[in-house]
Amino acid sequence: MSASTPTTLPLATLAQELARFRAACPLVHVLTNEVVQEITANVLLAAGAAPAMIVAEEEVPTFAAIAGAVLINVGTLHATRLAAMQQAVTAASAAGVPWTLDPVAVGALKYRTDACQALIRQKPTAIRGNASEIMALAGAGQGGRGVDSTSGSDAALDAARFLAHETGAIVAVTGETDYITDGKTTLATPWGHPLMTRVVGTGCALSALVAAFTAGAPNRLEAVASACAMAGMAGQYAQKQSHGPGSFKGAFLDALYHIQPENLLEISA
Amino acid sequence: MSASTPTTLPLATLAQELARFRAACPLVHVLTNEVVQEITANVLLAAGAAPAMIVAEEEVPTFAAIAGAVLINVGTLHATRLAAMQQAVTAASAAGVPWTLDPVAVGALKYRTDACQALIRQKPTAIRGNASEIMALAGAGQGGRGVDSTSGSDAALDAARFLAHETGAIVAVTGETDYITDGKTTLATPWGHPLMTRVVGTGCALSALVAAFTAGAPNRLEAVASACAMAGMAGQYAQKQSHGPGSFKGAFLDALYHIQPENLLEISA
Amino acid sequence: MSASTPTTLPLATLAQELARFRAACPLVHVLTNEVVQEITANVLLAAGAAPAMIVAEEEVPTFAAIAGAVLINVGTLHATRLAAMQQAVTAASAAGVPWTLDPVAVGALKYRTDACQALIRQKPTAIRGNASEIMALAGAGQGGRGVDSTSGSDAALDAARFLAHETGAIVAVTGETDYITDGKTTLATPWGHPLMTRVVGTGCALSALVAAFTAGAPNRLEAVASACAMAGMAGQYAQKQSHGPGSFKGAFLDALYHIQPENLLEISA
Repeated sequence: MSASTPTTLPLATLAQELARFRAACPLVHVLTNEVVQEITANVLLAAGAAPAMIVAEEEVPTFAAIAGAVLINVGTLHATRLAAMQQAVTAASAAGVPWTLDPVAVGALKYRTDACQALIRQKPTAIRGNASEIMALAGAGQGGRGVDSTSGSDAALDAARFLAHETGAIVAVTGETDYITDGKTTLATPWGHPLMTRVVGTGCALSALVAAFTAGAPNRLEAVASACAMAGMAGQYAQKQSHGPGSFKGAFLDALYHIQPENLLEISA
Repeated sequence: MSASTPTTLPLATLAQELARFRAACPLVHVLTNEVVQEITANVLLAAGAAPAMIVAEEEVPTFAAIAGAVLINVGTLHATRLAAMQQAVTAASAAGVPWTLDPVAVGALKYRTDACQALIRQKPTAIRGNASEIMALAGAGQGGRGVDSTSGSDAALDAARFLAHETGAIVAVTGETDYITDGKTTLATPWGHPLMTRVVGTGCALSALVAAFTAGAPNRLEAVASACAMAGMAGQYAQKQSHGPGSFKGAFLDALYHIQPENLLEISA
Repeated sequence: MSASTPTTLPLATLAQELARFRAACPLVHVLTNEVVQEITANVLLAAGAAPAMIVAEEEVPTFAAIAGAVLINVGTLHATRLAAMQQAVTAASAAGVPWTLDPVAVGALKYRTDACQALIRQKPTAIRGNASEIMALAGAGQGGRGVDSTSGSDAALDAARFLAHETGAIVAVTGETDYITDGKTTLATPWGHPLMTRVVGTGCALSALVAAFTAGAPNRLEAVASACAMAGMAGQYAQKQSHGPGSFKGAFLDALYHIQPENLLEISA
């Protein structure tokens, strides 16, 4: 398919999206893995959203339908949680609530690969993954062919465009530079920060922030890109304040709390 | 019902209760939600208690009966965990072990509302919640009528008194000011700190601290109020040391560790 | 049994093991308790390993067989997770993947004691516990007789040697001084740090680090001792940088990230 060159998300757009997000304080129904529940909640709280982890089949459909957005993360998937996730997606879709998929380690294991394939047939609003995950998921969309997880970011960008085109989702492939695409237009957010890879849950929590930004978003491509940019800027700022992954985590949450439409240049400097 | 004006918990009482708590190092059997397990354990460890998360039906009754106190938190309730909680409550009650209920989001969803109603019929020693939760639970006690979750703290105080009167529990309704009541006497602890609302689990961990203070307490009203005061003072101190919710969390745990009967005035200054 | 006097792990051996570990960046399949999943992942990431928490019966056997090492921690054991753990151990053993057992609170409750007895019959590569746990597990090996959990470290050292002899595992009994034994030779790592006992999961995360060091280890005794020494040195360094358990945790992760074969003397000074 033909595809335009990625363009960097304008700071003015980020400022506008950040102001919208902060005013909305969206309620995010989070169904995520066992490892990252606390950091996911803390990232959402620090950034200005309201997380709620609701997992029982007796509660999930009701809550997903009244939430501002839903996050599905398959990190420690098992049968009971997968059933709850499917209920959440069905209820969210019926109620017009946007939902985001984080396909953790898709492609590496058949059980979660099958689960993610079934989930994307239910049309997620957004998908956020690293290069390997987005390539694996795009490969699955092409019929389950193998995916070279050692491919570079160019290949992941093509896979992201393909996946967006096939599913209708906004697809974010994150790494040193994040690419966010609807299949036609691609935005880039260039605020990489290597320490983040040494703190568990930063990617998973970013997916929750992506979900939060899709709540009530007039432009979903810009909303998802703004979530990536907000986390990237906060991460870059935090990296300068910290001495390693332990101090990075606290500084990252502090930065998410303090980032404002008015101080973007200072934060990203 | 008639009710006296709340009085602030005297520092001398707090000092006495804190000394008792530190000497006891109570073993707390914690049955809580998926999101806050780590911070709950760390708050108890920093404050001077010994947390134990035991969840299997094969172990819960034995352990609840030998613990110093039990905490029940319904945050991410599901059927298996609810069954374990009911076992824990039954075993604790039979053995005379005090137990505390944190009715997270009661009133918002029928499943947990029903579960909390059933639990309070088993006579908790203490209940800790925010204004909406205490009002919802009191409404449930009045027959399940709706509760206006937008009501202010005065309404929550009346609901807390009513709930205490109906259940025999010490009820703590926490917020900017915490009110702790046995239905007749009401104590207040005025050490609010807004950053706490941007760190997940501070309320849930406070409930665990409430449970810990009820272990072997000669005066349960003063014990619960002292737990609230200890957390509030540590939070106020931490707020001054921190730059946002990330650094607040570390500073809060440090403050809980360092607060002593001898330095209360310094901490609360 | 006759036993030689413990000797302190030489810094040159630690430096060599640390270099080997960093070059390998081993993939560790972690099956641990609900409370410590995040700190366990963060300790492994900060130290230089790659954690993966995979829990579904559909995925566990496949993943355990391709991991560099497996950790089994019974902290919040329940039937479903125990079944997954048994699958992981069977698959790891069949594939020649080393696995480490952390027998949390063994001896205190029959269900986990029985589970741990069954697990050690499957020949763990390493076992890491505190004095009470190692003595309880050794007692179980002797036929389930009672164990005096109030015994001192000398008794735990004998129990560790006995347990190593009976199971073929490297046994680490950790505390102020850590002892690591194969039943004949015993190494000691003397970098104790009391704040660690006030942060949940430091022991559990050490077990994960022990597992990580066993991956591809040419000398398992030295590998396990090096994991204990790395954590101990980082803890000792962190204790000097911190004001309590909250700041300790961040400083500990930072220290694990920065410790190098070249700066061991500086860190341990």
